[in-house]
Amino acid sequence: MLKTAVVGATGYTGIEIVKLLLAHPEARITSLTAKLDKPVGLGVEFPELEDLRDLVVTPLDVDEVCRQAEMIFLALPHTVSVLFAPRFLAEGKRVIDLSADYRFADISVYESWYQTKHGDPEGAETAVYGLPELYRKEIAGATLLANPGCYPTATILGVYPALQAGWVNGNRIIVDAKTGVTGAGRKASLAFLFPEVNENFRAYGLVSHKHTPEMESILSRATGREAVVEFSPHLLPVNRGILSTIYLDLERDVGEEEAWELYASTWGEEPFVQMCPLGSLPQLREVVGTNACRIGLRVNPRTRRLLVVTAIDNLLKGAAGQAVQNMNIMSGFPEGTGLPGPGGLAG
Amino acid sequence: MLKTAVVGATGYTGIEIVKLLLAHPEARITSLTAKLDKPVGLGVEFPELEDLRDLVVTPLDVDEVCRQAEMIFLALPHTVSVLFAPRFLAEGKRVIDLSADYRFADISVYESWYQTKHGDPEGAETAVYGLPELYRKEIAGATLLANPGCYPTATILGVYPALQAGWVNGNRIIVDAKTGVTGAGRKASLAFLFPEVNENFRAYGLVSHKHTPEMESILSRATGREAVVEFSPHLLPVNRGILSTIYLDLERDVGEEEAWELYASTWGEEPFVQMCPLGSLPQLREVVGTNACRIGLRVNPRTRRLLVVTAIDNLLKGAAGQAVQNMNIMSGFPEGTGLPGPGGLAG
Amino acid sequence: MLKTAVVGATGYTGIEIVKLLLAHPEARITSLTAKLDKPVGLGVEFPELEDLRDLVVTPLDVDEVCRQAEMIFLALPHTVSVLFAPRFLAEGKRVIDLSADYRFADISVYESWYQTKHGDPEGAETAVYGLPELYRKEIAGATLLANPGCYPTATILGVYPALQAGWVNGNRIIVDAKTGVTGAGRKASLAFLFPEVNENFRAYGLVSHKHTPEMESILSRATGREAVVEFSPHLLPVNRGILSTIYLDLERDVGEEEAWELYASTWGEEPFVQMCPLGSLPQLREVVGTNACRIGLRVNPRTRRLLVVTAIDNLLKGAAGQAVQNMNIMSGFPEGTGLPGPGGLAG
Amino acid sequence: MLKTAVVGATGYTGIEIVKLLLAHPEARITSLTAKLDKPVGLGVEFPELEDLRDLVVTPLDVDEVCRQAEMIFLALPHTVSVLFAPRFLAEGKRVIDLSADYRFADISVYESWYQTKHGDPEGAETAVYGLPELYRKEIAGATLLANPGCYPTATILGVYPALQAGWVNGNRIIVDAKTGVTGAGRKASLAFLFPEVNENFRAYGLVSHKHTPEMESILSRATGREAVVEFSPHLLPVNRGILSTIYLDLERDVGEEEAWELYASTWGEEPFVQMCPLGSLPQLREVVGTNACRIGLRVNPRTRRLLVVTAIDNLLKGAAGQAVQNMNIMSGFPEGTGLPGPGGLAG
Repeated sequence: MLKTAVVGATGYTGIEIVKLLLAHPEARITSLTAKLDKPVGLGVEFPELEDLRDLVVTPLDVDEVCRQAEMIFLALPHTVSVLFAPRFLAEGKRVIDLSADYRFADISVYESWYQTKHGDPEGAETAVYGLPELYRKEIAGATLLANPGCYPTATILGVYPALQAGWVNGNRIIVDAKTGVTGAGRKASLAFLFPEVNENFRAYGLVSHKHTPEMESILSRATGREAVVEFSPHLLPVNRGILSTIYLDLERDVGEEEAWELYASTWGEEPFVQMCPLGSLPQLREVVGTNACRIGLRVNPRTRRLLVVTAIDNLLKGAAGQAVQNMNIMSGFPEGTGLPGPGGLAG
Repeated sequence: MLKTAVVGATGYTGIEIVKLLLAHPEARITSLTAKLDKPVGLGVEFPELEDLRDLVVTPLDVDEVCRQAEMIFLALPHTVSVLFAPRFLAEGKRVIDLSADYRFADISVYESWYQTKHGDPEGAETAVYGLPELYRKEIAGATLLANPGCYPTATILGVYPALQAGWVNGNRIIVDAKTGVTGAGRKASLAFLFPEVNENFRAYGLVSHKHTPEMESILSRATGREAVVEFSPHLLPVNRGILSTIYLDLERDVGEEEAWELYASTWGEEPFVQMCPLGSLPQLREVVGTNACRIGLRVNPRTRRLLVVTAIDNLLKGAAGQAVQNMNIMSGFPEGTGLPGPGGLAG
Repeated sequence: MLKTAVVGATGYTGIEIVKLLLAHPEARITSLTAKLDKPVGLGVEFPELEDLRDLVVTPLDVDEVCRQAEMIFLALPHTVSVLFAPRFLAEGKRVIDLSADYRFADISVYESWYQTKHGDPEGAETAVYGLPELYRKEIAGATLLANPGCYPTATILGVYPALQAGWVNGNRIIVDAKTGVTGAGRKASLAFLFPEVNENFRAYGLVSHKHTPEMESILSRATGREAVVEFSPHLLPVNRGILSTIYLDLERDVGEEEAWELYASTWGEEPFVQMCPLGSLPQLREVVGTNACRIGLRVNPRTRRLLVVTAIDNLLKGAAGQAVQNMNIMSGFPEGTGLPGPGGLAG
Repeated sequence: MLKTAVVGATGYTGIEIVKLLLAHPEARITSLTAKLDKPVGLGVEFPELEDLRDLVVTPLDVDEVCRQAEMIFLALPHTVSVLFAPRFLAEGKRVIDLSADYRFADISVYESWYQTKHGDPEGAETAVYGLPELYRKEIAGATLLANPGCYPTATILGVYPALQAGWVNGNRIIVDAKTGVTGAGRKASLAFLFPEVNENFRAYGLVSHKHTPEMESILSRATGREAVVEFSPHLLPVNRGILSTIYLDLERDVGEEEAWELYASTWGEEPFVQMCPLGSLPQLREVVGTNACRIGLRVNPRTRRLLVVTAIDNLLKGAAGQAVQNMNIMSGFPEGTGLPGPGGLAG
């Protein structure tokens, strides 16, 4: 049994990792920590977990965590992960970081978009970007893994096949994305109170959202073609899920079936990427509660565009699920172990 | 034009008063204040109001408010209203207080349920309870008006006719109430974040909710019969509205039509109380956006109970709307002036 | 592997059984039928299931189903189940019926509340009521199992301990219940369109709801004490879940801790009944996606009442989950096999 | 008092017209009809209206309507309006048609996108497109008015200023739109049941939505520049409102402030178009319950795009509100008479 620790266990992402690990047949939670003054029972924060296990969340003590666990999940804000990851690595631990801190090979991009000095340039060089569909081999050997952002995951899987094939203009990618509210994190705030979000819908972060350079740099690196993304996120009145509508300018005439075949052959072997049938598009509910990314597409011959729609659960394939998928790869477990597949909770 | 001030203008109740006053043909807003460090444009907090008027919310300065306004709405937390109401009254202003501070003739009840010393016992003696359906005449002459709580409004209007008629056992009243989230106020908190409330439902405050003694004391005073209420509020995943299901034990055999006639004759002249047709019950949506209380009822001969269902918009008839209704009465305006009637926003 | 059929597979309950069976390690789906003109791929109706298995739903052919399956789930409307159950039983199949048809030992009660002649009085006599917490032993030997209604499940588990102990007045039980919209079934209708339910809340079926006699007869039979229930269901704007607030008149003085101990000892060994910690109450979200019933309680010494709040997922413990739990018992599998426990999908 | 009729009064749009007319000081409803077998009280269908007026909806009888009303609102499906409009016009009535039937000067475009023969080519020639911001003068003299589609309204107001100024490439307009569920109409259906829409989000009608040619033809006609629109609508889990995110390729360098000034000067005098302050964007809730279209914009110098976000209430500025605005113009009433302005129902 793999001994695992979750640092930052009481956020929406942290608790999602905890739930996945609790159900994982090859892993065991040996440490849960959070920014707390004193230990608190997990069941006090999350009553639905109270009977399950006798888990306690404690204030973070790096040495203590190192004594208890081999695989460390960091569910921390960016700029905070760099403070702890090196200390765990120095003790020979493997680290899966869910912040943005280690997602950029070129830290100048990070520093410019995140408006901060990078706290661990050395780490940034060795970190592996944890999108299994592109970097499975590197992930298997990683000690420091940068788990992708939710939006970049939903974008890259939707853009990569067409960009890689050279079919579309990489400088003119538009991603109109819509996310559920758990994407904003679990912290007291006025902007995310129920009456402020319910029966409402709004764009935010147009032009400047920090996930933009992550999409661009990974797409460029993976395809060898420049990628410039107009990324426009919006806030949906739902708990979970991201649905992205992606606009790609075709540089050659492509039929809808041909495009579908390209995507199907690119992702055909992937356990957690599913193509919708030709002519149909994914709905958010089809992926909520699962680790799947579902993809549908349409070709508009009138405007010569390829429209790709992708859907993921922001807390699973967009965060905790992908982190556990990476843990499985890093540990030699079958990749889907303990992960909810298609057909999760509906209704 | 009546010059009005809203103290505490940026909460859900405060802003609702502001919107009603903006549309009121006989009133003018001359002062808006809130707990702020410096003045802020109302349109900055509430963008939908930005173009409407050039309104600024300032930190509270009692003297300044007194210079500008005659009628003062206090949308403040309980224990805070008592700090300001006497100062406005001393300057000859009329005060409509939306907190609980002045709702109890017997302040020992207040002190016991609210677990605090009452800060203005004298004021409590002179205050008028602002439920127009019971105290219209007293309201007309009030200088200090205690605007009823949202739950007590929905309860009293549903219980009074049967209790007054001596048909039901006053010691066995059960009120199972469900409210929208704006009832919790507009302040940063974890418990009312969208993902904590959406797709969720819960009871809160069973046995101990502070609105219980308010219902009991007003019902007892108005009917001359003892009233003991089992009051159980719940939190609905909707923005606005209260629907209360009220269980009354009949002490004589009453038919449904007879009961309906009693209620219809009791409230028949009331501009903001509407009986649903015999045999039908109100839905929340029928009252949202209006100042109406809608009432439906059923008689269960098998269990010998009268079931009454009442519905109000917690921010209108339950707070701001009733406050403006009271302002109208206190000022000699037609009672419904500026108030949304039946048929408010649906869809 | 147990060969199973689901008759009525495309409703909300039917598809939920399908999903549970797909994940069940000891069962295999060998037949899916529904009221259809021609066969249709399950993935066409439910895209999230499209990649999972090659399942097809066909028009019902009893003989064909009998050739393929041993355990038959009937997810049919009442009065329809009686048309088919006898035919399956005659072929030696075991039947789990999710309609109301076989829930009444005394069919005159059924005939009076459902206003219809019972189509299979003989079957009604031999059927076992499938609430494992009360009838586990009988269930093990059942060939015709009547799966309980969703509301009765949430009520009986909340009332039984106190009524059985003789602490409360059985003639004065009040159940104020609130359900999610999937409880209304999956059929085209105006009343359950999104804009008719969203931002709305309403009571329905006061006085006359058909689940009333089911609660009463099972509670009476199981405790030997008469039970009369005032049952008032309401419609919540959520997809799934039932939360019931139960009012019980105490006939002796009971402390909250004492009451809690009674419930904890009554249900302590039950795999799918969980007591909330003393002093806390269940929220709907804690049970959604799980087969659990969670129970909390409060004692109000002022009114001498015991308030019990129970929460279940109407599609799981209230229907499909309990059906699979019964299948497990009938088949000798560990009772929780394939059933989602506490800690289901949150967020 | 203008005597008005609503044909098709029981749909979401029809009832919204009714509510506006009920509150309109210069208009009176003299006839309500719908596809019915026999007359029904409006309060039976819409209980919140029951006490308001003694209105009855009757089966449509054209002669009878002509005897009673001067101004006829047709809230009918496309292809049905053409059956009735000519008959009302022949009797000297003025007609405001809310279907698509008369929105196209070139009926071959209509016939090709709507896949049907146009039933009244003559009418199509004389009809006036009822977008007051572009065609106020023509509207004043119209006898047959084609009320714009909801999506075209939200698109045209957002695109026109930049396209008219020659700043952007008219062939590369992308509109990613999101609508509330009332946009789908009030008819029994599986796809719009609460559990199918709630906690869900999906695209629909990509490439082929029928509002596309309406946007294109009006934009082209009004600016004299070709407009090709990639229009992608999505379904939001909210009752009301449309928020459109519009992507425009700049053909010259434009600063954000300069762009804002262009829009502000173009729409500055319009009573129902409001610019958000420079740098801020509209939220759906700001327009729900009002007849306003709110517009915000951002310039992305990195991608050389102008992003415009527009928000309207689909039932008001997108349908019934705009229809009444047109009635006001056609009748010589002040344009905003009886229309809810900014600051509608929030919370």
